[in-house]
Amino acid sequence: MSDIKRVVLAYSGGLDTSVIAKWLQVTYNCEVVTFTADLGQGEEIEPAREKARNMGIPDEHIYIEDVQEEFVRDFVFPMFRANARYEGDYLLGTSIARPLISKRLIEIARETGADAIAHGATGKGNDQVRFELSAYALDPDIKVIAPWREWDLVSRSALIEWAEKHQIAVPKDKRGESPFSTDANLLHTSSEGKVLEDPWDETPDYVYSRTVNPEDAPDEPEYITIDFDKGDGVALNGEKMTPAVLLTALNELGRKHGIGRLDLVENRFVGMKSRGMYETPGGTIYAVAHRGIEQVTLDRGAAHLKDELMPKYAELIYNGFWFSPEREMLQAAIDLSQEKVKGTVRLKLYKGGVHLVGRKSADSLYSERHVTFEDDAGAYDQKDAEGFIKLNALRLRLLAKRDR
Amino acid sequence: MSDIKRVVLAYSGGLDTSVIAKWLQVTYNCEVVTFTADLGQGEEIEPAREKARNMGIPDEHIYIEDVQEEFVRDFVFPMFRANARYEGDYLLGTSIARPLISKRLIEIARETGADAIAHGATGKGNDQVRFELSAYALDPDIKVIAPWREWDLVSRSALIEWAEKHQIAVPKDKRGESPFSTDANLLHTSSEGKVLEDPWDETPDYVYSRTVNPEDAPDEPEYITIDFDKGDGVALNGEKMTPAVLLTALNELGRKHGIGRLDLVENRFVGMKSRGMYETPGGTIYAVAHRGIEQVTLDRGAAHLKDELMPKYAELIYNGFWFSPEREMLQAAIDLSQEKVKGTVRLKLYKGGVHLVGRKSADSLYSERHVTFEDDAGAYDQKDAEGFIKLNALRLRLLAKRDR
Amino acid sequence: MSDIKRVVLAYSGGLDTSVIAKWLQVTYNCEVVTFTADLGQGEEIEPAREKARNMGIPDEHIYIEDVQEEFVRDFVFPMFRANARYEGDYLLGTSIARPLISKRLIEIARETGADAIAHGATGKGNDQVRFELSAYALDPDIKVIAPWREWDLVSRSALIEWAEKHQIAVPKDKRGESPFSTDANLLHTSSEGKVLEDPWDETPDYVYSRTVNPEDAPDEPEYITIDFDKGDGVALNGEKMTPAVLLTALNELGRKHGIGRLDLVENRFVGMKSRGMYETPGGTIYAVAHRGIEQVTLDRGAAHLKDELMPKYAELIYNGFWFSPEREMLQAAIDLSQEKVKGTVRLKLYKGGVHLVGRKSADSLYSERHVTFEDDAGAYDQKDAEGFIKLNALRLRLLAKRDR
Amino acid sequence: MSDIKRVVLAYSGGLDTSVIAKWLQVTYNCEVVTFTADLGQGEEIEPAREKARNMGIPDEHIYIEDVQEEFVRDFVFPMFRANARYEGDYLLGTSIARPLISKRLIEIARETGADAIAHGATGKGNDQVRFELSAYALDPDIKVIAPWREWDLVSRSALIEWAEKHQIAVPKDKRGESPFSTDANLLHTSSEGKVLEDPWDETPDYVYSRTVNPEDAPDEPEYITIDFDKGDGVALNGEKMTPAVLLTALNELGRKHGIGRLDLVENRFVGMKSRGMYETPGGTIYAVAHRGIEQVTLDRGAAHLKDELMPKYAELIYNGFWFSPEREMLQAAIDLSQEKVKGTVRLKLYKGGVHLVGRKSADSLYSERHVTFEDDAGAYDQKDAEGFIKLNALRLRLLAKRDR
Repeated sequence: MSDIKRVVLAYSGGLDTSVIAKWLQVTYNCEVVTFTADLGQGEEIEPAREKARNMGIPDEHIYIEDVQEEFVRDFVFPMFRANARYEGDYLLGTSIARPLISKRLIEIARETGADAIAHGATGKGNDQVRFELSAYALDPDIKVIAPWREWDLVSRSALIEWAEKHQIAVPKDKRGESPFSTDANLLHTSSEGKVLEDPWDETPDYVYSRTVNPEDAPDEPEYITIDFDKGDGVALNGEKMTPAVLLTALNELGRKHGIGRLDLVENRFVGMKSRGMYETPGGTIYAVAHRGIEQVTLDRGAAHLKDELMPKYAELIYNGFWFSPEREMLQAAIDLSQEKVKGTVRLKLYKGGVHLVGRKSADSLYSERHVTFEDDAGAYDQKDAEGFIKLNALRLRLLAKRDR
Repeated sequence: MSDIKRVVLAYSGGLDTSVIAKWLQVTYNCEVVTFTADLGQGEEIEPAREKARNMGIPDEHIYIEDVQEEFVRDFVFPMFRANARYEGDYLLGTSIARPLISKRLIEIARETGADAIAHGATGKGNDQVRFELSAYALDPDIKVIAPWREWDLVSRSALIEWAEKHQIAVPKDKRGESPFSTDANLLHTSSEGKVLEDPWDETPDYVYSRTVNPEDAPDEPEYITIDFDKGDGVALNGEKMTPAVLLTALNELGRKHGIGRLDLVENRFVGMKSRGMYETPGGTIYAVAHRGIEQVTLDRGAAHLKDELMPKYAELIYNGFWFSPEREMLQAAIDLSQEKVKGTVRLKLYKGGVHLVGRKSADSLYSERHVTFEDDAGAYDQKDAEGFIKLNALRLRLLAKRDR
Repeated sequence: MSDIKRVVLAYSGGLDTSVIAKWLQVTYNCEVVTFTADLGQGEEIEPAREKARNMGIPDEHIYIEDVQEEFVRDFVFPMFRANARYEGDYLLGTSIARPLISKRLIEIARETGADAIAHGATGKGNDQVRFELSAYALDPDIKVIAPWREWDLVSRSALIEWAEKHQIAVPKDKRGESPFSTDANLLHTSSEGKVLEDPWDETPDYVYSRTVNPEDAPDEPEYITIDFDKGDGVALNGEKMTPAVLLTALNELGRKHGIGRLDLVENRFVGMKSRGMYETPGGTIYAVAHRGIEQVTLDRGAAHLKDELMPKYAELIYNGFWFSPEREMLQAAIDLSQEKVKGTVRLKLYKGGVHLVGRKSADSLYSERHVTFEDDAGAYDQKDAEGFIKLNALRLRLLAKRDR
Repeated sequence: MSDIKRVVLAYSGGLDTSVIAKWLQVTYNCEVVTFTADLGQGEEIEPAREKARNMGIPDEHIYIEDVQEEFVRDFVFPMFRANARYEGDYLLGTSIARPLISKRLIEIARETGADAIAHGATGKGNDQVRFELSAYALDPDIKVIAPWREWDLVSRSALIEWAEKHQIAVPKDKRGESPFSTDANLLHTSSEGKVLEDPWDETPDYVYSRTVNPEDAPDEPEYITIDFDKGDGVALNGEKMTPAVLLTALNELGRKHGIGRLDLVENRFVGMKSRGMYETPGGTIYAVAHRGIEQVTLDRGAAHLKDELMPKYAELIYNGFWFSPEREMLQAAIDLSQEKVKGTVRLKLYKGGVHLVGRKSADSLYSERHVTFEDDAGAYDQKDAEGFIKLNALRLRLLAKRDR
C-alpha cells in the first residue's frame, strides 16, 4: 500500500461508498474526507452526514453540497450548445457529471491537504476513466484510489459480509442482488446490468423511474415554449428561470409525457459494448428546442461546422476528456457560434414525442422574401442559379470528359 | 435560343410539366421526349402517355417506367447505410431521388439522340442543382434547359393563361393558388411554401398526406421486427421482401402510427433558409432499425468513423453531388463497414414514436461475459484499466505540471 | 447599366486598373474613388496619386495607404497559427491579402458615401470570389463591379487600343504580351499563365523575382533563431521586431538562400485546375519555425485537432470565406491553442532548404525524464503500458473472435 | 509465469533479442521460434540462423525471410497513396513496418502451433503498441510477451552481465553505452535517445547513416522521372521496377543528394513527447512525386476529402491500428480515388531538396482551354462567375443584414 495520509472520497452515503470509506480507513490507515454532492439525483444527501460521523469522520471533513446550478450552467448547457449525442443517440447524462465531481474532489483535497482521492466506480466501466482523467488534468500529482480495482470484495455477499464485520449498516433492500444498477443526476438516470444484459429483451417498465410509460401519458398534447439567449435556455412558457430550475421544470414535463427513454447498446471507452437504459426527460425536450432555435438563427457555415465537429466533441466527453485542450478548443468554436442563438421555440409534447412546431427570433436569418415562390425582383435573381450550377459542375464535367 | 434539336423532359404529366413540354416545342422549336417515372409518388403515371400523345409526341419518345426497386436498392438503401441526416434531422427524401431521374434522362438522351434535357425545378431551390450536377457529371456535353429560370410565366395566372392559349387542359383544382407545393416518392413527401412560410406557425394537419396525426393513431403499440443483411433491410416480421416492397410495407406501418413527420427550417445550397414539412414514414422506422442493428454488429472504430463522415456525406447528397468522386469514396468506406451488419431488430411503434426495444445477431460483438458485473476471470482484467487510464492521462498531467 | 453614383476601385496605378478607372467613369458615368495599398508588393504606390489626378479624381477621393503591419498582424500571422496549407503545399499568399483589401474598400465606401466597389480580377480566377465574398459579408447592400466580366476588352490589343483612345499612358513594356502574370505582396509573389501553362514544362528561372536560384545561393548554411509568443513570431536572432518587419527580414533571408519556390497545379474554387508558381521566402521559413515551436509547447490533443481542422480552414481562406462564421469559429479554436506557444526555434537555411535543428521553451511539454531509456521509477511505470494496450486491443479482439 | 509452451520471437540476431530468446527459454521454460525478416534494414539476416542454432533452436523453428517486396507493395505504397504524414512531417517509416512483422509472427505461430509471440520493444515506446494491437487483431487468443516490461535487466550493464552468464556472445561495440538507438527498414532509419534527447541541440552529423550531409551533396542538380499507375510508382527514369526495387533506387538517389533528413519532436501514443531523427531518402522523393501526379489526375472533391481524412489515417498507423476496421474503411476510400492516378512526374534533386518541376498524364484533368487568359468562348463563360459568387454570398449577406 502506498503512503497515503488523507483521501477525499466521492461519497453518496449508500452502502457501497460507505464500505469504501471504511475500507480506506482500514486498509490504507488514512484519514477519509467525504464529499457528497446534490446533482439532482433525487435523493436526500443530508443523511450522509450522520453516516460519515459514525465512521469517525470529523465534521470539518464532511462536505455536503448542492451543486445543481453549477452542474447545469457550466457543464450541461455548454454541452447542449454543441447538440452533443454520443453514437447518434446518447445525451451523455452520466459522462457530463463526472468532471464536476472530480473538480470538487481536487478542490477539497487542496483545502484539506489531502494527497489522494477515491471513487466507487468499477474497473469495467467508463466512469473510472472520467473521474481519473479529470482529476489528473486538474492536479497532476494527485493519487487516485479505485477500490473496486484493488479489493477482493467482488461478489455482493462478500461485500455485505465485510460491511457487517465492520459495523456498517446494511439496509434490508440492499441484502439481495439488485436486478440492475443505476446512476442519476438532474439530467438523467441510467440503468444497466442484470435484467438489461440481453440486448434482445425489452427493458421492463419497472426499470424506468423518471418517466411514465408513453402509453400512460396524457391523451392530450401539451404545448410549451422555451426562450433562448446566447444558446442557453432562459425561460419556460415565458417565465424566466435559472438553468437548474429550467431543467427541473422540463424534467417534470418530460416525466408526465413519457419523454426521453432510450434503450442503447453503446461502445465503452474501455473496449466492450454495453447495453443501457437512459431516461433524460428534460434534456430530450431541451435538445429539440436548441436545434429549433439554431434553425433560424445559425448561419449554414456555422451550423454545418458544428455538425461536423459534434461526433468528436461528444466522444471526448464520453471518454472523460472534458478537461482537455481539445475539448476546450471545440468549446471555443461552438460558443462563438451561439452569440445570436436567441429567440423562442414552440414544442408539442405528446406520448413520448417532442415535436418542434414553431420558432421565432428577432435575430432570425430566415427571409420570407428570399424563399417565396412569388416573384420578388431584387432579393434573388433566379438567373444567378445558372452560373452557380455551371461552376459547381465544371470539375465534374472535366472529370466526365476524362473518364469516358 | 441555342440550337437544340431534341430534349428529354422529366415529365410528371401534371400541369406545370405539360406547359413546359409545349413551351419547349414552341420556344426551342425542338422535339420533346418525355420521361415519366414511378418513384412511388402514389399517383398513376400511365395518364402521362395520353397527355404526351396529345402534344404530338410519338410513342417511341414517350418513356414511362416503374423505377421503384432501383430507387430503393441503389439510392435509398446505400444512403441509409450511412445513417445520413442533413442538419441533424432531414432524411433526404427529395435529394436522393434526383440523381436517379437525371441518370435516366441522360440514358434516354443517348438512346434517342437528344442533345438536351429539361426539368421543372425553379431557380430558387435545390432541385435544379441536383438535377443538373447529376446530368453534367454523367454527360459533360449535355445541355440543360430549366424553363423556370428562363421564361416569364412567373405568376400562376400567367402560367394558366399560357396553358389555355396553347390548348393544355387545366384541371379545376389547379386553377387557384395551391396553399403549398409538394414533392413525393416512395421515401417521402415534402411540402413547402405559402401556408408553411412563417416558421412560427404550426403546420396545419391537412398538409400531411402520408401519415395520420399521432393523436389519431392506434392506442395500442405495435411491435415489428426487421431483418438486415450486409447493412440492408431484407425482411419484415420474418417475411423476406425486396427493397421497394419492404419500404412500402414500412410506409404503411408509419402511416398508421403517425410516424415520420418533420417540421424543419433548413439551409438550402443556394444560400437561403427555407421551411419545409417532411413525411418519411417508412424511412423513419428504417433509420432507427439500421442504427439498432449496427449497435451490436459494428466495431467502435467503424461506428465512430461513420458518425464523423456522415455530416459531409449527407451534405453532398443534399447539395446534389451524388455522382461525385468524394461521395463514391465515402460510400466505399461506408459499404466496407456493412459486411457483417446482419441480424434482427425489434421495434415498438406508438403514436408517432419508433422505439428500439431489442436487437440480436449471429454476428454480434456484444459480449455479456465482458460487460457483466460478475467476476469473470480471464475475459477482462480490471487491473488493466489502471494502466489504460494512466497512459491516457500522461499528456494531461504533463500539461497540468507545465501550466500551474 | 445599373444606377451607380460613386465606386471605390482597388487601384494599383498600373495600366489595367487605370483602364478600369476610366472605363467606370465612361461607362457608368459615376465618380471613382481609388484605393491603393502598399501590401509589400515591392512597387512604389505614390505614383498612383498623380495618375488618379490625371483622370480627374479629386484628392480627397485618392486613398494611398501602407497596410503592411495590419496585413501581417491581423491576417498572415493568424493564418500561420493554423499551419495552413492549401492542397498540401500552398501557403495562401494571394488568398490572404484579398479580404484586407475588400475590408478597406468597404470602409472607404462608407467614408465617401460610395454605393459600389470595383476590382480588376478576371472572371476565371479565385480573386474575384475572394474580393466579392469579403465585400458582401461586410456590407450586404454593396454593389460590386467586375469589369473583366462585363466589358469586351478581352484581348491585350483591344485593351491597349481603348487605353490610347482614352488618353491613358501605356508604358512601353506593357505594349506586348507579358509572358506571365503576377501578383505580389509581403508574403509572396505568384505567377501564372502563358509560359507556365504546360504543367510538364519546368518554370523558367526568369519567372522568379523574390529568390535566387538555390544553385546560386551561398555555399555556407546560415543559422537563425526565431522567438515566438502566443503563437506569433516576435524576434529574429534575438532582436524584437514588429510582424511586418520580421516578415520583411525573413524574406531577405529567404531570397538569399533560394527558399520558398513552389511549382503547383492547384484546384480553383471556380472549378478548373491551374498551374502557378509561388515564391514565399519568409513565409516558408516562418511556417517551419511555427511548427517547430508547437512541437514542444502544444499538447497532442490540441496538435492533432489542429491538424484535422487545417484542411478545411485552408480551403475556407482559399475560397474567399475569411469573413465567415465558420472561419471565425475555427480561428477561435486555433487561437485558444496558442496561449503557451512561446519559445525559440533554431533553423538552418541552405540552398533552398529550411531545416529545423532546435527548439526550446520555458513552456515546454517535453520531459526528458519521461522519455529516457534509463530507469526512472516514478515518472513512468512501464507496466502501465500493458493495461493500456490490452484495453485498446479489446474491441479488436472481440472483432477477430467474431470474424474468424 | 503463465503457461506458455512455444513462443515466436521477432528476432534480429542482435544482442538484445538474443538475450530475449535465451531469457524466454530460461524464464518461461518454453520453446522459442525465431522470425528474422529482411525489411531492407541493410544488415545481413543470415547470421541470425547460426545464433539461433546456438541457442538450441531446431532448424524448422528458425524463420529467415526477405519480405521487402511485400513490405513496399502491401504496406508502404498503400500508405503513400494517402499522402500520410504524422504531425505534419513524419513519414511513418517505423510505424508501417510493425504490422507486417506481427502478421508474420501470427502466421508462424499458427504454422508451428505456438501459443505466444514476443518482441523486443520497450515499455515506453509506440512499437510495443503497434506489435501487440496488430497481433491481437489477427489472433484474439494469442499471448504476447514483452520482456522489457517484465524483466529487471533495466540497465545496459545488467543486460550484458546476464548475457555473459548465459553464454551469449557480446560484440565489442555493444559493451559500452550506445549514444543513440536505431531502427531501420527499406523506408527509413530512425534514431533516438541519449545524444538526441535535448531538443535544442542539433543532431550530430554522425547520427545519420542513410544520407550524405546536404552540404556534401553534388553541386549539380539531378533530374529524374517517376511513372505512376493506379497511385503507385512503377518506373524510374522510364525503367519499370517492382515496388521494393523502385524504393531501393530512390533511396540511393536520396542518399546521394542528402534528401529526407528530419529532426522531429513528436507525440507518442503512450503519452509523452520524444525527439527523434528520421532519414527517409527514397520515401521523401516518392511523397513529392505522388502529390505531383495527383495534382493533375485527381478531382478537387477527391483531393480535398483525402486531405481531410489524412491526419486521422496517419494517426491510426502511428498508433498501431493498421489492422482495424476504420483504417480499412479509409483505405477503401483512398484506393478508390487512385484509379486514374497515372502518368509521369519530373523532379529535381538538389542539396537536400526535392523540387517538383513537371507532371503529365494521359488522364490529366488539367485543361489549358479552361484556364487560359485568352478568350475561349464555349469552354468557360466568365459571366457564370457572377451567379456563382452571388449565391455563395447570399448567406453571408443575410447574416450581415441581421448583424448590423
